[in-house]
Amino acid sequence: MENERLILVTNDDSVNAKGIHALVEMAQQFGRVVVVAPDKPQSGMGHAITINHPLRLFPSDLFGQIEAYACSGTPVDCVKLAISELLHRKPDYILSGINHGENSSTNVLYSGTMSAAIEGAMEGIPSLGFSLADFAPNADFEACQYFGAQILTQLIAHPISSSVCLNVNVPKLKISEIQGIEVCKQAHAYWADRFERRTDQFGREYFWLSGEFADVDQRPDTDLQALKNGFVSVVPTHFDLTAYETLQQMKNWKI
Amino acid sequence: MENERLILVTNDDSVNAKGIHALVEMAQQFGRVVVVAPDKPQSGMGHAITINHPLRLFPSDLFGQIEAYACSGTPVDCVKLAISELLHRKPDYILSGINHGENSSTNVLYSGTMSAAIEGAMEGIPSLGFSLADFAPNADFEACQYFGAQILTQLIAHPISSSVCLNVNVPKLKISEIQGIEVCKQAHAYWADRFERRTDQFGREYFWLSGEFADVDQRPDTDLQALKNGFVSVVPTHFDLTAYETLQQMKNWKI
Repeated sequence: MENERLILVTNDDSVNAKGIHALVEMAQQFGRVVVVAPDKPQSGMGHAITINHPLRLFPSDLFGQIEAYACSGTPVDCVKLAISELLHRKPDYILSGINHGENSSTNVLYSGTMSAAIEGAMEGIPSLGFSLADFAPNADFEACQYFGAQILTQLIAHPISSSVCLNVNVPKLKISEIQGIEVCKQAHAYWADRFERRTDQFGREYFWLSGEFADVDQRPDTDLQALKNGFVSVVPTHFDLTAYETLQQMKNWKI
Repeated sequence: MENERLILVTNDDSVNAKGIHALVEMAQQFGRVVVVAPDKPQSGMGHAITINHPLRLFPSDLFGQIEAYACSGTPVDCVKLAISELLHRKPDYILSGINHGENSSTNVLYSGTMSAAIEGAMEGIPSLGFSLADFAPNADFEACQYFGAQILTQLIAHPISSSVCLNVNVPKLKISEIQGIEVCKQAHAYWADRFERRTDQFGREYFWLSGEFADVDQRPDTDLQALKNGFVSVVPTHFDLTAYETLQQMKNWKI
């Protein structure tokens, strides 16, 4: 089937994570799936690319009959390598995830899962990142598969700008408990960082990043609010970081 | 001087790069400088944070009398560690750079230099990232210092939204050749990626990311155009990735 949809699946939790296997299962309903995903966890890698080290690509048999590769790089490296060296064309869709843990609000900036989808948007490919609000390795991805398939079906029927991807977050609830799907905006919450200071076996100090998510954004129509209210949140996400309001204000600068 | 401005300086090229020393020299005119920067090059690390490894912090004497630390993590880790563990308060300004190489257009997403400034904006701290369109280790940063000081002076006189940082790019020209400063928007160019396939000493294949910057955005008021025309570009940059136009369109989805 030459006209079959080609779907690239990636993530940031690695080829070994339960979430990407759940996503592949869902994606197979929509076309031919190829997996290119990190060979080790790459959470928090944001939009990092590997420029100072060589990249490796290993065929993987973790996905049965599905063509799959483990890559030594970041999620964005996976997208670039897949398009340039493996598929030799742009896939029709890029699906990233399902992430073990929420990527709502400003987490979109730190998330390797979402950066892979944003890289897809930069290439003009319809792309979706999926995340479940449950960090557990054995999390239940059934609701993500169910609502993810609905959202992808809608995106196929109603295409959006090719430079916009979707950030889909699913609350840790059963399908029957979920209130629906809400299209909303990115909340402006932030991490109140804390580091744990510890001492290693040689008496030298080191730090672990820790902290709590501080929800400062009380507006009603954000992804954080949607999740709190039991909805699946869908934020259309682009890569134009220009602050246009400020751009107007700065016209009075004397430069 | 208790009311003296506290200025955090960081970068992604490491404490050893010429660019950060040029930036510290400039920053000293404006207040007390503390340096927290990576101990090794972290170019292309985007908004990555270190969550699966411990972080180390080493006092550095590379900056003479200036309080300085080399950090084993990413530029965003540097900002987080500085605020949380070293300064014990938010600095008044964060200056990041001066990067060896341009960070205009969509490079803002891959750039560790700009991610440090964006992290500052997420913390509500006035932050600026500076980049020079010259990758050379011994690049001439004089024009960056000259125009950077002008831009910081303007920012102090005319504060902007605390959740917006500035992406400053300087063309590879002498001060006298630069046409002025232009406040503009982020261009929508992208990398036409290519990978070099090579074989290592054991006969195994590896890849180096390469490619060319494809300037698809021909609009007149972008950072790429400003730089081409010999101007310093200043793009006000925020971290709300919501695509608001698409958000409106998606109201017709049947979900």
